[in-house]
Amino acid sequence: MRRISVLGATGSIGASTLDLIRRQPEAWDVVALTAHGNAQALAALAREFGAKIAVVADEAWLPELREALAGSGIEAAGGEAALVEAARVPADITVAAIVGCAGLAPTMAAIEQGRTVALANKEALVSAGEVMTAAVARHGTTLLPVDSEHNAIFQCLSGNAHKDVRWITLTASGGPFRDWSLEQLHTATPEQAVKHPNWSMGAKISVDSATMMNKGLEFIEAYHLFPVGLERLRIIVHPQSIIHSMVEYRDGSTLAQLGPSDMRVPIASCLAWPARMDTPLAAQLDLAAIGQLTFRAPDEERFPATRLARQVAQAGGGIPAVLNAANEVAVDAFLNGRIGFTRIAAMVDEVLGRYAPPPPAAIEDVHAVDAQARRAAQAVMEMA
Amino acid sequence: MRRISVLGATGSIGASTLDLIRRQPEAWDVVALTAHGNAQALAALAREFGAKIAVVADEAWLPELREALAGSGIEAAGGEAALVEAARVPADITVAAIVGCAGLAPTMAAIEQGRTVALANKEALVSAGEVMTAAVARHGTTLLPVDSEHNAIFQCLSGNAHKDVRWITLTASGGPFRDWSLEQLHTATPEQAVKHPNWSMGAKISVDSATMMNKGLEFIEAYHLFPVGLERLRIIVHPQSIIHSMVEYRDGSTLAQLGPSDMRVPIASCLAWPARMDTPLAAQLDLAAIGQLTFRAPDEERFPATRLARQVAQAGGGIPAVLNAANEVAVDAFLNGRIGFTRIAAMVDEVLGRYAPPPPAAIEDVHAVDAQARRAAQAVMEMA
Repeated sequence: MRRISVLGATGSIGASTLDLIRRQPEAWDVVALTAHGNAQALAALAREFGAKIAVVADEAWLPELREALAGSGIEAAGGEAALVEAARVPADITVAAIVGCAGLAPTMAAIEQGRTVALANKEALVSAGEVMTAAVARHGTTLLPVDSEHNAIFQCLSGNAHKDVRWITLTASGGPFRDWSLEQLHTATPEQAVKHPNWSMGAKISVDSATMMNKGLEFIEAYHLFPVGLERLRIIVHPQSIIHSMVEYRDGSTLAQLGPSDMRVPIASCLAWPARMDTPLAAQLDLAAIGQLTFRAPDEERFPATRLARQVAQAGGGIPAVLNAANEVAVDAFLNGRIGFTRIAAMVDEVLGRYAPPPPAAIEDVHAVDAQARRAAQAVMEMA
Repeated sequence: MRRISVLGATGSIGASTLDLIRRQPEAWDVVALTAHGNAQALAALAREFGAKIAVVADEAWLPELREALAGSGIEAAGGEAALVEAARVPADITVAAIVGCAGLAPTMAAIEQGRTVALANKEALVSAGEVMTAAVARHGTTLLPVDSEHNAIFQCLSGNAHKDVRWITLTASGGPFRDWSLEQLHTATPEQAVKHPNWSMGAKISVDSATMMNKGLEFIEAYHLFPVGLERLRIIVHPQSIIHSMVEYRDGSTLAQLGPSDMRVPIASCLAWPARMDTPLAAQLDLAAIGQLTFRAPDEERFPATRLARQVAQAGGGIPAVLNAANEVAVDAFLNGRIGFTRIAAMVDEVLGRYAPPPPAAIEDVHAVDAQARRAAQAVMEMA
């Protein structure tokens, strides 16, 4: 039996993870489950899986969690410190699936265990970059990427040396506006942006997909996860999202990982790594039924986010955290009807021009950069 | 420096192999080079690469080879026994690229060295099947497949267990007649059949591509190389031949190997395995320029060869050797205008119905089955 903790158990990645664990209960010993504030759902999961500890990040929900777990013998806790404590309880693998900067500290705590962390928190690597990769190296932690693109790259790199890589190619669906002209993009509404063609996702990430900032963030993640050099990282638009990413080697061989749009596939890859485990047969690939896969070069005039991401990855230090924070503020403003669609990337660009923090040395510094970048973004928005 | 022998040095695979070796002369010590009868070309290669031994399979060309190598210090030899002797001279890797059953004995001799054999001789595994795989196991030989499809599968399986495989999918271009109706196929000419859309190949293999018998032979090869069970092997038609083959795992992940139609890519993979070596940058993949990859299910009504191949793989023993020999006779008859295109597979089917030899125990038995199957095929042809 392997001990597992799921940070962010009630979210989409958490639910998919627990769906897989539910199918092989004999293999897993669930240690800690956490949620933001959904105490009832968390308690139900903690009881079902016989967790040792359940934690709500928002302490306001702790009384409800306690009540829901009464008599179960499961420890209930709440607040950010409790979240970090939960991430420190020994687990062979921790699925780090808390969304946003709230996940930084518990993810770092899990990394500091020196065991295995399946990372689904995009912001962690984007914002904490070198701080996090240094911790991974220091503690000898195995970091497994859950994101379908990075998991694909991880699989395609298996058994190969970074020095033999000619290209790592991240595939991008191109989002719902991939065929829109720049003029049309100026008029794009939040309702149009949240309709993602291939994946069912939340509003923030759907907008990131529409601006291709999602791919930009993934580009920065890939830069940290797979240190082959920025000049060997590229993006290709592949609307069907069947090929999740590729690695071309110096012998001309390209390895690609393909699969259905089902997050249980990359999660299963992480849970069983370096072996394999079953996923439901729903997760099969039928290329004859799909018929065709198409590809085109990205257009950074219409979608400048990936260009910005390359710039901030090159700059390093705290700069990617500024991009991430500015983007969150801009997307929120777009979703609330305060700015137009093409203003999102423009605003991020302006914030990057106004705030260039020194490299953070610890997670606290990253939080400070994040907060300051948000203030800078608000200032930019109010000026416009 | 690694010692290398190239059996079939003047053919297409041999030339591609030597092109790669030419680019890193410091890494390779060329031991034996062989050819069928092209003594001048063989002598030139032997001198260029400083080979120890050069052998012509057809002894008639030995005097010419001796003359061309006079004063070089390179040993010249001729005939089938000399070919086998050359394959026995210690080499760290032997590229077995002699076409047809003539390659069986030298390939077996190379396998019996217990080192590494890069296998490009399709007939070897198809006809000698279990005899060859048993020798590989007995001598602890590393068998690396050169064929682009099998090399792709080999790469996609790297680091994974056969038990975790859900599907191995061989891709097939579908050949020049993939969109032809059965009625049109009845009228197909040799000239039409030898125009392969993606690869430049000889007449025999071009016809095999047009009937899809080539894919059938590869299916049987795959069955021997990757023992996951016949029911986990399948074929998909992929006209662009960019994805060379795929492996789907039980977690829903599919790994695919892609590359340009350049045999130097799979050859380089074999030469450098488990590391990687450079190929010329010509061998790059530009999916954005290619634009689209398409897929469809194979049609075994129009192209029954793959169905026949599945049947003979299931039957095992000497039956695949009968299919291979009958096909060679039928293709030759087609190329000489004696039978029509659709008669090729029909003839193979009839020969399979008339001659069912016992399982061969050694290469000599395989040769006997091959000869007897050719006689049976001639008989079938004369009856028609």
